Amino acid sequence: MVALTELQAILDRIGAEMVAAPDRGLVADYIPELAHVSDRHFAMAVATADGQCLTTGDAETAFSIQSVSKVFTLAIALGRLGDQLFTRVGREPSGLAFNSVVQLESENGIPRNPFINAGALVVTDAILHGHKPREVLGEILRFLREAAGEDDIHINKAVAAPEAAHGHRNLALAHFMAAHGNLRNPPDLTCGTYFHQCAIEMTTRQLAMAGRFLMGAPGAARLVSPARVRRINALMMTCGHYDGSGEFAYRVGLPGKSGVGGGILAIAPGRASIAVWSPGLNVQGNSQLGTLAIERLVRAMGWSVFG
Amino acid sequence: MVALTELQAILDRIGAEMVAAPDRGLVADYIPELAHVSDRHFAMAVATADGQCLTTGDAETAFSIQSVSKVFTLAIALGRLGDQLFTRVGREPSGLAFNSVVQLESENGIPRNPFINAGALVVTDAILHGHKPREVLGEILRFLREAAGEDDIHINKAVAAPEAAHGHRNLALAHFMAAHGNLRNPPDLTCGTYFHQCAIEMTTRQLAMAGRFLMGAPGAARLVSPARVRRINALMMTCGHYDGSGEFAYRVGLPGKSGVGGGILAIAPGRASIAVWSPGLNVQGNSQLGTLAIERLVRAMGWSVFG
Amino acid sequence: MVALTELQAILDRIGAEMVAAPDRGLVADYIPELAHVSDRHFAMAVATADGQCLTTGDAETAFSIQSVSKVFTLAIALGRLGDQLFTRVGREPSGLAFNSVVQLESENGIPRNPFINAGALVVTDAILHGHKPREVLGEILRFLREAAGEDDIHINKAVAAPEAAHGHRNLALAHFMAAHGNLRNPPDLTCGTYFHQCAIEMTTRQLAMAGRFLMGAPGAARLVSPARVRRINALMMTCGHYDGSGEFAYRVGLPGKSGVGGGILAIAPGRASIAVWSPGLNVQGNSQLGTLAIERLVRAMGWSVFG
Amino acid sequence: MVALTELQAILDRIGAEMVAAPDRGLVADYIPELAHVSDRHFAMAVATADGQCLTTGDAETAFSIQSVSKVFTLAIALGRLGDQLFTRVGREPSGLAFNSVVQLESENGIPRNPFINAGALVVTDAILHGHKPREVLGEILRFLREAAGEDDIHINKAVAAPEAAHGHRNLALAHFMAAHGNLRNPPDLTCGTYFHQCAIEMTTRQLAMAGRFLMGAPGAARLVSPARVRRINALMMTCGHYDGSGEFAYRVGLPGKSGVGGGILAIAPGRASIAVWSPGLNVQGNSQLGTLAIERLVRAMGWSVFG
Repeated sequence: MVALTELQAILDRIGAEMVAAPDRGLVADYIPELAHVSDRHFAMAVATADGQCLTTGDAETAFSIQSVSKVFTLAIALGRLGDQLFTRVGREPSGLAFNSVVQLESENGIPRNPFINAGALVVTDAILHGHKPREVLGEILRFLREAAGEDDIHINKAVAAPEAAHGHRNLALAHFMAAHGNLRNPPDLTCGTYFHQCAIEMTTRQLAMAGRFLMGAPGAARLVSPARVRRINALMMTCGHYDGSGEFAYRVGLPGKSGVGGGILAIAPGRASIAVWSPGLNVQGNSQLGTLAIERLVRAMGWSVFG
Repeated sequence: MVALTELQAILDRIGAEMVAAPDRGLVADYIPELAHVSDRHFAMAVATADGQCLTTGDAETAFSIQSVSKVFTLAIALGRLGDQLFTRVGREPSGLAFNSVVQLESENGIPRNPFINAGALVVTDAILHGHKPREVLGEILRFLREAAGEDDIHINKAVAAPEAAHGHRNLALAHFMAAHGNLRNPPDLTCGTYFHQCAIEMTTRQLAMAGRFLMGAPGAARLVSPARVRRINALMMTCGHYDGSGEFAYRVGLPGKSGVGGGILAIAPGRASIAVWSPGLNVQGNSQLGTLAIERLVRAMGWSVFG
Repeated sequence: MVALTELQAILDRIGAEMVAAPDRGLVADYIPELAHVSDRHFAMAVATADGQCLTTGDAETAFSIQSVSKVFTLAIALGRLGDQLFTRVGREPSGLAFNSVVQLESENGIPRNPFINAGALVVTDAILHGHKPREVLGEILRFLREAAGEDDIHINKAVAAPEAAHGHRNLALAHFMAAHGNLRNPPDLTCGTYFHQCAIEMTTRQLAMAGRFLMGAPGAARLVSPARVRRINALMMTCGHYDGSGEFAYRVGLPGKSGVGGGILAIAPGRASIAVWSPGLNVQGNSQLGTLAIERLVRAMGWSVFG
Repeated sequence: MVALTELQAILDRIGAEMVAAPDRGLVADYIPELAHVSDRHFAMAVATADGQCLTTGDAETAFSIQSVSKVFTLAIALGRLGDQLFTRVGREPSGLAFNSVVQLESENGIPRNPFINAGALVVTDAILHGHKPREVLGEILRFLREAAGEDDIHINKAVAAPEAAHGHRNLALAHFMAAHGNLRNPPDLTCGTYFHQCAIEMTTRQLAMAGRFLMGAPGAARLVSPARVRRINALMMTCGHYDGSGEFAYRVGLPGKSGVGGGILAIAPGRASIAVWSPGLNVQGNSQLGTLAIERLVRAMGWSVFG
């Protein structure tokens, strides 16, 4: 077990480096409410196996978790359907952009994995089946609140109204899957639920705490079984950063999931649940400083799963 | 000028051969109202430059013209926008299926040509801009009635409600183009208008008469100018039969446009406007006996544009 | 029949316009010997049904016919194998660049048509089967000399050595087809023959004369039957200008085949065989002024096959 | 540290299960010398951090390591060029078959990662640059012998002559990359060296021993630095099983590299280097029983990197 004072010192050093970093990437502009978030924000939080949570930076400021939510809806869907979910979505990297429709056409409307947009729509659609959007969003929030151990986690409805192009793109994916019989609910219902799920806001500290069930923290097995945790981590490793997943594995060496709001959740199994937030994105659409900060933390702590 | 008695004899011979043909292709089943049309129907009609119209078979039975309607909406759209239409849709063969979305992704939401579904949606969307669907459908019917020289041409509303998969596929294309800023109206409005346009019913004789403006019939220039007629014919030649366009040009040697209802309109410039109807389709989705019948007619009459 | 003096006047006017044209396109640079051909050259020749040949510009200067040769090897291969050739190559437009390998992968090594590079390699490979490259090249030259009615047509061996990238690209296509069992000869043998065939040099006048068999000139049926001529013309119409075939049909309205050396052969069935040469290419890789010149000629003469 | 007697018992149990398994996959037939290897073979070997090597089955029978060799050539190339190698090859999963050429066309001849065939050809080409094939093959053998700690490792020249289709496919990839300027040596030289590298034969025990440098075994850092070991493991995790990499990560949870000869090398960082051999392949082209055996071993030992 690492000494907490040493870990805090490392966090503070990295935090200072990130605040000073000149190249901060570009804040995504396709969700109007997110476009004017300052690229100066930086926060990192590390939750350890014994329940501690160390932070640096703006770790108490809530941000839009966006696609990081896909990890939690996947956990919920697997809890409800088990491996049967994988008749409707694959578990291979796509080799394509997060919103590509090309692969759907050549593979009969079955998305490659649950973390590209089409796959996440299928996951949400699976949870939604037989329920109302409000019920499902309530269930997602309950899961997150229980995982994080606190209640102050909400949906920002202004963020849930996506910019036209972004909304149409996801509706196109949903209609396309519906045409292949791979959607159970009307496309606008599934997309509407999905847009709200992506609009969940959490602080960096909350996100690190909520990810503890994925590091195998004591007591977390009541949320998700260890076997399932391993599988979710595997999917985060191979598919969690879209077409930059190989790069994240190469540089960081941990399973992780990014969101367009600039958040990343990364898991050091048995050791730590790590959350970062920095709104500027790199060309693959992942937080630029967030990736760099986790890379430095993992190297300093020797936390790579690859040795 | 060919002797009409000789042409009638050729039509009757081909009609008899088609009635006896054992392999009739498969009737499309993705539009419920069309699925139970008998594959025994066959009709051919030839309208000549001097206003005669010779027929064989069920030439007075109305059928669903479906994608053949795209020729007429293209003529209307070019009349309204001129070549400016081609900033929103290309004029190259696609080398892909009629409802493919792959090409849209790699070419920024600009469909390859006006005859694949995505391109036809853009054409309808262009006519629709600033109007109500009912007005636009009225305009299309007026164009057809004037071109055919008679009023008994209508929309079958039962056919306009597409089977789910088919409807979703077109909505996916529309949303995809909307995401690229290449749609002026809401996707469901454009798609709804398009589905109704495809549900127009005409007899084989009416269709041959309506195509006369494309053969350069005397007086037809008041509908569409000769220069524009040549261009529409060129698009029908290279793109009129989806991914079977090369095959149609190779076998038949005329510009043509097929519909999933089993109709084909083919043009022998300066000589004849030819319509056929036989509901069974070949693997490319074009009328099997319809293609064969036109091939035999063109060979017998020496009407290929290729010598 | 058009008055020859009128046709000559039109040719001279177009020739003058082309010499003065400011935007001449770009001379291809991937064949070293062709890279330093001046973009100032322009020539047009029109061979009529009665054996006359009218010209304008540098019509007696030999140039590299490159892919225009594919029309003649196709005629030879069809003469030897008939429609059996089409078990190895399709007859549909590709919707892709002339040297794309993507389509080969998804369609089992069967090129889409005989005019993209892969298809032309199959055609040459079919002629080569059982013979030596020298014999085959001799046969192609004999065909061309007989078609043109003169003997001064040769291969420029310096041009036959392609620039590395260009050579490798064609070898990749050949090996890829060999991997699918769609090549009868070793890839380097087929490619070597193909590179030499492309290096044939002809004058613009010779090319127009050599194309007379495709317009159905009297006596030309001894070279190729009328039915086959129609089919070759159909392929030139739908596939003769790579991914610019739709555009050529739209603007010009005649079957045609272009070459990277700046030559185009276009056929007005029953009326004329037209050759142009201008080395600057447009973005689709077809002669920029050559296309424009034929467009103007066809409009002036009313030669479009589309009315 | 696990008790060796317990590990041996687990190995023996798994070995017995695999010998009895009814569905053994299909032996690859595209390399003639490999087509008649019996699908009854099974072997597993586990080398631990302290230098022990436990085995079960035919662990002393040499087999063709094929693509497993790519791990070792990657280590050599990184040792020579460092991260500069990644200007010529990416590090993302491809989402396509191991021998696909599609991705090369859309990404300028830069293969997605070093483990698909195109990428491995680039790696071999990088090592070959400035040397003779014989020298390079000698260097690869020396690396393997040192890593395995024994000398009896050889190339089977009969296996190095690939079946025609397989050979042509790789030559197509090589020529394609040469066309994009991404090959330093003539395609046949690079391919010839690559075919010989794939024809290296090792026993399952030798392979497990040779993989010890990737688990961070004491003393192994003299071969490859710890930072580089982590990166090779990351690439094995995301790209080591072609389009079945996500599946291997999901089921097994370790970095691994498979070969068409039925071998797999998997690494449990800090704990074990695991080799299996069973010639029958699953639909993704990876050893069917080999994957299953490693999956069971990892579950029994708790060796997944994902918790």
